[in-house]
Amino acid sequence: MSRTAFFISDGTGITAETLGRSLLAQFENVDMHMITKPYVDTTDKARTLVQVIEATAVRDGETPIIIDTIVDAAIRAIISQAPGFKVDIFSTFLEPLEKELATHSTYTVGRTHSIGRDDVYMDRIHSVHFALDNDDGARTYQYDKADVILIGVSRCGKTPTSLYLALQFGIRAANYPLTEDDQDEDGTLKLPAVLKPYRHKLFGLTIDARRLAAIRSERRPNSRYCSMDQCMQEIQQVETLYRHLHIPYIDTTRFSIEEISTRMIAETGLHRRFSPH
Amino acid sequence: MSRTAFFISDGTGITAETLGRSLLAQFENVDMHMITKPYVDTTDKARTLVQVIEATAVRDGETPIIIDTIVDAAIRAIISQAPGFKVDIFSTFLEPLEKELATHSTYTVGRTHSIGRDDVYMDRIHSVHFALDNDDGARTYQYDKADVILIGVSRCGKTPTSLYLALQFGIRAANYPLTEDDQDEDGTLKLPAVLKPYRHKLFGLTIDARRLAAIRSERRPNSRYCSMDQCMQEIQQVETLYRHLHIPYIDTTRFSIEEISTRMIAETGLHRRFSPH
Repeated sequence: MSRTAFFISDGTGITAETLGRSLLAQFENVDMHMITKPYVDTTDKARTLVQVIEATAVRDGETPIIIDTIVDAAIRAIISQAPGFKVDIFSTFLEPLEKELATHSTYTVGRTHSIGRDDVYMDRIHSVHFALDNDDGARTYQYDKADVILIGVSRCGKTPTSLYLALQFGIRAANYPLTEDDQDEDGTLKLPAVLKPYRHKLFGLTIDARRLAAIRSERRPNSRYCSMDQCMQEIQQVETLYRHLHIPYIDTTRFSIEEISTRMIAETGLHRRFSPH
Repeated sequence: MSRTAFFISDGTGITAETLGRSLLAQFENVDMHMITKPYVDTTDKARTLVQVIEATAVRDGETPIIIDTIVDAAIRAIISQAPGFKVDIFSTFLEPLEKELATHSTYTVGRTHSIGRDDVYMDRIHSVHFALDNDDGARTYQYDKADVILIGVSRCGKTPTSLYLALQFGIRAANYPLTEDDQDEDGTLKLPAVLKPYRHKLFGLTIDARRLAAIRSERRPNSRYCSMDQCMQEIQQVETLYRHLHIPYIDTTRFSIEEISTRMIAETGLHRRFSPH
């Protein structure tokens, strides 16, 4: 059985798609083709989309699922003519909320809302450039301004996590790679001197050795760097260090970057400078 | 009037928060304090949270709003005891969807869903490192592998947009700054030679001069670089170039990074390698 779901919005489509994917993820045995249609903000675009939905219904031989966050009444009226099973987020929840809050929503008066705000934009730009400037131990003299310093072996997920924290939450995340250069004479990994004053800001990442080897071999195939022996040894050393120094850490193996980031925030109480939506 | 909204989840909280913020954004005249509570995945955590909500209700003198995506029945039962106006996303929509799809959801059988998937993770890592390696014109020999090449003046939003496209959609975005070095003898901005073979991949960004001057002056205060004259002249030149060469472009001044990115995709038909949720 193959069906199609449309996530329709007069804006970015992020809300309709996020909710739609969460709902449909609960139906693992349904083969669902998902299509996001953002910026359906004119009646012409709405009419064209209705034709697409009609053609899809014929092709699939199944009713499409329609999940939308359209605000404009004229556009809603057109979309409502499309053949589909409708999950109407705003009309379902806004009327009860209007009663509870004893006020009218801008939805009912047909005004849209923009997520662009000056202060958020500046904070994002600043945090993204902070993450880039302080990526991979490139600079260490700004650690006093860091909200958090991610540590871990090469390619365990520090860079994408730092950037996600910056973009989504305005958190200033530096990251520093732990390598063999940080071992003492008898081969034990030590906390690098540059990190010692910032123990309270450290957060460790670790990863399954097999996964790490796979990621590294995309970068440098058939190298010592990507060998299982090397990966296992490095990981064992960092995990010993984390436990020894009571540095909080997460195993990134089975988690998405969203999960790593939000778990870090939940565990450490890191302050989000903003929320993008 | 000040009220509190809780976005509660046994996972990242992204769905509850995204929907919650979209709904509450429709009530601009309500002063709403929003709190995200992710990873409420034990009955103990749920009981603690109920106490927090109770204390909030007393402090505010108003009923809190509770928007949740909890899957586990035992945890749901505890949260349902909290004093609040409930927007119950999953129970509202999943039962009708179960009927429409003629199947039970994992929700009703109490299984949770993880958003971490191996292929998505690899695509993300690859796209993020592509964006970093090809940031700000640092390298130009990988442009044949780029999905899109963002161009524009310094600090118009190229880097955060490239990184957002990589993280959220797995799109490989390079970016290249247009500067005075790219002017010919009589001061006209020309398309740099390195970009000429990739005309079809170019996407321009532009920005309001006042906004650009403000952003640049955070970086280099009182410089020619951040002066209004300089910003106006640079912007005028790139916009002339875009129009002359029919390069699609967006004015980033009033848009968030989400809006810039999703508008680019909608306008160009850029292929998303994945969707994170």
